[in-house]
Amino acid sequence: MDPAPSISYSITVRLEVPSGGSAVSELTTTVEQSGGVVTALDVSPPSSGDREGLRIDLTCATSGTEHADRVVAALEAIADVDVRKVSDRTFLMHLGGVIETAAKHPLRNRDDLSMVYTPGVARICQAIAADREDARRLTIKRNSVAVVTDGSAVLGLGNIGPHAALPVMEGKAALFKGFADIDAWPLCLDTQDVDQIVETVAAVSPGFAGINLEDISAPRCFEVEARLRERLDIPVFHDDQHGTAIVVLAALRNALLVVGKRIEDVRLVMSGAGAAGTAILRLLIEAGLSDVVVCDVSGVVHAERGDTDESMQWIATNTNRSGLTGTLREVLPGADVFIGVSAPNVLDADDVAAMAEGSIVFALANPDPEVDPIVARRHATVVATGRSDHPNQINNVLAFPGIFRGLLDAQSRGIDDSVLLAAADAIAATVAPDELSANYIVPSVFHPDVHARVAAAVRSAASGAAARP
Amino acid sequence: MDPAPSISYSITVRLEVPSGGSAVSELTTTVEQSGGVVTALDVSPPSSGDREGLRIDLTCATSGTEHADRVVAALEAIADVDVRKVSDRTFLMHLGGVIETAAKHPLRNRDDLSMVYTPGVARICQAIAADREDARRLTIKRNSVAVVTDGSAVLGLGNIGPHAALPVMEGKAALFKGFADIDAWPLCLDTQDVDQIVETVAAVSPGFAGINLEDISAPRCFEVEARLRERLDIPVFHDDQHGTAIVVLAALRNALLVVGKRIEDVRLVMSGAGAAGTAILRLLIEAGLSDVVVCDVSGVVHAERGDTDESMQWIATNTNRSGLTGTLREVLPGADVFIGVSAPNVLDADDVAAMAEGSIVFALANPDPEVDPIVARRHATVVATGRSDHPNQINNVLAFPGIFRGLLDAQSRGIDDSVLLAAADAIAATVAPDELSANYIVPSVFHPDVHARVAAAVRSAASGAAARP
Repeated sequence: MDPAPSISYSITVRLEVPSGGSAVSELTTTVEQSGGVVTALDVSPPSSGDREGLRIDLTCATSGTEHADRVVAALEAIADVDVRKVSDRTFLMHLGGVIETAAKHPLRNRDDLSMVYTPGVARICQAIAADREDARRLTIKRNSVAVVTDGSAVLGLGNIGPHAALPVMEGKAALFKGFADIDAWPLCLDTQDVDQIVETVAAVSPGFAGINLEDISAPRCFEVEARLRERLDIPVFHDDQHGTAIVVLAALRNALLVVGKRIEDVRLVMSGAGAAGTAILRLLIEAGLSDVVVCDVSGVVHAERGDTDESMQWIATNTNRSGLTGTLREVLPGADVFIGVSAPNVLDADDVAAMAEGSIVFALANPDPEVDPIVARRHATVVATGRSDHPNQINNVLAFPGIFRGLLDAQSRGIDDSVLLAAADAIAATVAPDELSANYIVPSVFHPDVHARVAAAVRSAASGAAARP
Repeated sequence: MDPAPSISYSITVRLEVPSGGSAVSELTTTVEQSGGVVTALDVSPPSSGDREGLRIDLTCATSGTEHADRVVAALEAIADVDVRKVSDRTFLMHLGGVIETAAKHPLRNRDDLSMVYTPGVARICQAIAADREDARRLTIKRNSVAVVTDGSAVLGLGNIGPHAALPVMEGKAALFKGFADIDAWPLCLDTQDVDQIVETVAAVSPGFAGINLEDISAPRCFEVEARLRERLDIPVFHDDQHGTAIVVLAALRNALLVVGKRIEDVRLVMSGAGAAGTAILRLLIEAGLSDVVVCDVSGVVHAERGDTDESMQWIATNTNRSGLTGTLREVLPGADVFIGVSAPNVLDADDVAAMAEGSIVFALANPDPEVDPIVARRHATVVATGRSDHPNQINNVLAFPGIFRGLLDAQSRGIDDSVLLAAADAIAATVAPDELSANYIVPSVFHPDVHARVAAAVRSAASGAAARP
């Protein structure tokens, strides 16, 4: 069966129909019978010729591109109805991109020009040449973040390259502006070589106060981030790792409150040891987790497996204190928490049923979770996914706008775990005790306070830990 | 003597004065007697305490920072006047920088989010992954230009580095937006190595439809531009070279109309063989100039001088057909045109008087020209400078906005001399025949048509020469 119709597969169909009779109601009935949802209908006289007809722009949500084609075919099949044009609302929105620049001051006359540009600007340059720190006061550096990708691991689409990655980075820049008033500009790199990525980001860094790395595949993302953090005097944050980790920790803190357990006491089983999984693991351990077993496609990660990559060795050393081996299904029984950042449908109802009383399941694989959340909810007390059509969406949009707002406001020169922990606590605390329930463990990204709360917490943590000396 | 007061050295002084009497007129008189020009005066009751007093915000133009200090001192010397705060209007304007980003669509709810960002954006990515050319349609690439510098030759300030260069690049981005609706973002590079500059710009190029190189010192700028043009499929334009060359050619075309001479017939002497001088020379030769002698600090450039750098060898081979040697002053007599892009005060009135009848002098050194334009005008028919306080300002703001607008509209993959010549002709033709005079050979940068005319001419030339195959 198709998923529910979604606005992100919304189309606008221009039709011409005879005036009079039941033409309009026939259109909406046809859309509904085809499984679409009508969201707008505009009727006007046709542009030319047939004065007897009507021109109708009908907008409807569909379940996907194939479903949209079926809806259009059904409309075309109606007698006397003429389909003129089909537009895809999402494509229309992305024509020419979703962000732009704006000049903060008008350029009306020579006086404006002489202050914004030459000769007046020379004095600003001289002030910064005399004291480089003035760049954080007198330029866009103060509020600018580079959103950097190499296009190697974009959304769930894989290695689609820098051009195809650009719409995601633009969207991210739009979110930075909309949620935190940050000026972010996308840099989609025409290289996937670690050295070249590091050199390029270091070279462009003077004009930015922060670097948001995005959709760079593991394990290269670890090295890129570590080397840039070592080299630059501005914070570097790989959102796929830490953004996800922060929101997972926030959600877990509240989920544990719901079931009445402490992070120090629970046994947690994780499926997935990629960039997000590793970052989640590190942050949860930092937050007090001690009993954790990680599984990947080869089963439980343990020291005798002989993994050579540095990140897997870290996992083998720092998890699985009981020295378990075997498969995910073999180690899950009795666990208090399952966190999946791996692949669809690796668990079923029986697996969840075998977990401990008051179990917590975060099945974050997108778009299809590790276990059907409706099935999981039969046995687990708290269930979260990455999807917006179920309760408890783990969405890193909750984290990155406020985190960078806080880092920029603190003029931070770096970022450390205290900042990530502070951000997670701020997100968790946005859900008030009397609001907290099994179906409300994280706020909406449109919660009026969440980004400002995260920013304030990060600013305070960054001032203590990673700010200018 | 100080130069004339300028808005780019404008200050706002907050004062408290006794109410009643001649306090206000005493303030304005003092400013005028100190050589300042009052441009605004706001009077309000003081913020606290003395209900008898007035708070006055007085804005005035001064000749420079020292002059501003003298004006403030004169105000402080008035009895009963209390100077509270002195603000510099240009610094105020640059606080936090002069450009920002803007989201083109509001983010009001989950529907907006699902189209601008995930999951809807995935379909845009897939379309571009299937056909990379769609990036010019469905992303910001279509309208984006990187303004790239290494901070090595910023304005007349020299090698002040990438941080101090940022205000100029921001100002340029603001001009791109204001005059040609182009989204430009500054990239100030933390390297002055040619290889690294080339690699960095190539790496970030996927997200841009054009590269504006800026304030990179000669001779590195020649190699950086040449290598990037060879490597990238988007136009690369070093504004200090070609922007200046285009406006000089436009001005020269009109100046020659004023004096009734043809470019093919004139003898031209040029002072300066740097980035701008070389580009001017090449474009004028392309436009028909054949009799030209170039001088630098060592005098006339000729083949026997033994210059080793490639650009100087090109000059020696392509100029000075009579094989002259000696100094600028020795070769200038009898010349029809002098163009200076070199140093202040290398010529005097006698030198200009010794030129041919109906001579043309472009003295473009900034801020002090090769010859005082007032002195030059006694003997030359047409005089132009780079300054805004004399007629005929040679300002590359006339060129770059329209040039990039035209290149972007043509989706041009490169740029060649036909584009530069077309832009120069469009600027020249913006001065109508009945408007043309010795004191009006180039339009103002605020001329309502000039940028659109340049864009149209460039779009047409680029479509013919350098556009996509």
